Amino acid sequence: MNEEFSDDEKAGFYKAIYSRRDVRSHFTTAPIDDKVLTKILNAAHHAPSVGFSQPWNFILIKSQKTKNKIKESFDIEHARASEKIDGSKKSEYLALKLEGIIESPVNICVTYDPTKFGPFVIGRTSIPETGIYSVCCAIQNMWLSARAEGIGLGWVSILSNEVLKKQLGLPEHIIPIAYVCLGHVTNFETKPDLERAKWLPRLGLDEVVYYEKWQQKDVSDWNVIQQYIKSNLDYA
Amino acid sequence: MNEEFSDDEKAGFYKAIYSRRDVRSHFTTAPIDDKVLTKILNAAHHAPSVGFSQPWNFILIKSQKTKNKIKESFDIEHARASEKIDGSKKSEYLALKLEGIIESPVNICVTYDPTKFGPFVIGRTSIPETGIYSVCCAIQNMWLSARAEGIGLGWVSILSNEVLKKQLGLPEHIIPIAYVCLGHVTNFETKPDLERAKWLPRLGLDEVVYYEKWQQKDVSDWNVIQQYIKSNLDYA
Repeated sequence: MNEEFSDDEKAGFYKAIYSRRDVRSHFTTAPIDDKVLTKILNAAHHAPSVGFSQPWNFILIKSQKTKNKIKESFDIEHARASEKIDGSKKSEYLALKLEGIIESPVNICVTYDPTKFGPFVIGRTSIPETGIYSVCCAIQNMWLSARAEGIGLGWVSILSNEVLKKQLGLPEHIIPIAYVCLGHVTNFETKPDLERAKWLPRLGLDEVVYYEKWQQKDVSDWNVIQQYIKSNLDYA
Repeated sequence: MNEEFSDDEKAGFYKAIYSRRDVRSHFTTAPIDDKVLTKILNAAHHAPSVGFSQPWNFILIKSQKTKNKIKESFDIEHARASEKIDGSKKSEYLALKLEGIIESPVNICVTYDPTKFGPFVIGRTSIPETGIYSVCCAIQNMWLSARAEGIGLGWVSILSNEVLKKQLGLPEHIIPIAYVCLGHVTNFETKPDLERAKWLPRLGLDEVVYYEKWQQKDVSDWNVIQQYIKSNLDYA
């Protein structure tokens, strides 16, 4: 394999980065091809991990009974969350579709196992949380790979981890990190749902970049890149 | 943009997934083009985030003084970690090159700001850690984009977050998630350093996938995909 990326290869890569969406309302019930799902899982499994510990597991779910239990948990947690919002924002919140548990053909619970290849894991000695960070990298690989395969993925974070642990029979030491729904979609939106709904705006890149220290801007060493970043070039 | 990915576009995408490496020993001191670095940051900024909260910040570092302080912290934490290993593994551990702080031209600290767009963030009400998970997704986007641009990236997790916070002037509520080193490289290895050093083996995909419940295999509903997964097809 040539180490450098051609312009075409870069274009394919950035297409995944910029067209990936968090999918909730556009799922179809069409089944996912098993080979495609294997490719998506393999991409996840090739994420980086601290000390090469590969501390992730993927539990594939299509049982209607399990999905129903998870949906129940979503409903309870969703109602609880809505109590924290006031006035017009509350009705806006309740109108948003925030999960596709039942209608997506495959759900996946991604878990973290701190004991894998342990207890000594290279690079996890000073900051133990890096094990969990590795699992998140795997989830992002999965998400992007799903997009490249034309499969939508939605991360459902409004649920109880206790319910998840019980329904999936997770041992005490196993931490559920994500519950995601996968399926074919009617279409991929060009912008995130919450941006389209004007819930929140996309921040400019210059709003999230600092130079040398927290909140520092206008550092002479970084003047050129700061101009690029401020110009908000469309790299999408 | 056509929503579907052509075979060429998929090939470009998977090239990034499978040729990305955690780089420590192959950095050159050649500067990174500012436009390229902007593209890498923009890819990170287009990661998914819980409630579209975009809770990340990127602090770009090239100050030699800061790098020296971080390297000092690495040295202390690295020595401390080595005390936890016995015998031959210890000398193996000490022979591994685990950071490229000084020789890489750009270091980036990626931070998490739980207050951004808060306190109510959609989807973060039941599992507050999802804010941090979003930052990790951004880091993985950055990592893959760097690879596509021919830039090596190495995540240094052996350091003290307290030192980081002090050196970068982070407020109390800001959590450093990653400290990464970026630069051109002499070459990208085809396998992870720790796999090449036979520190740990790559697990088979079938070892990390379960069906419906924790540790469950051989579920009739999933027989076909299980065959694909067990066959260890080379999707790289």
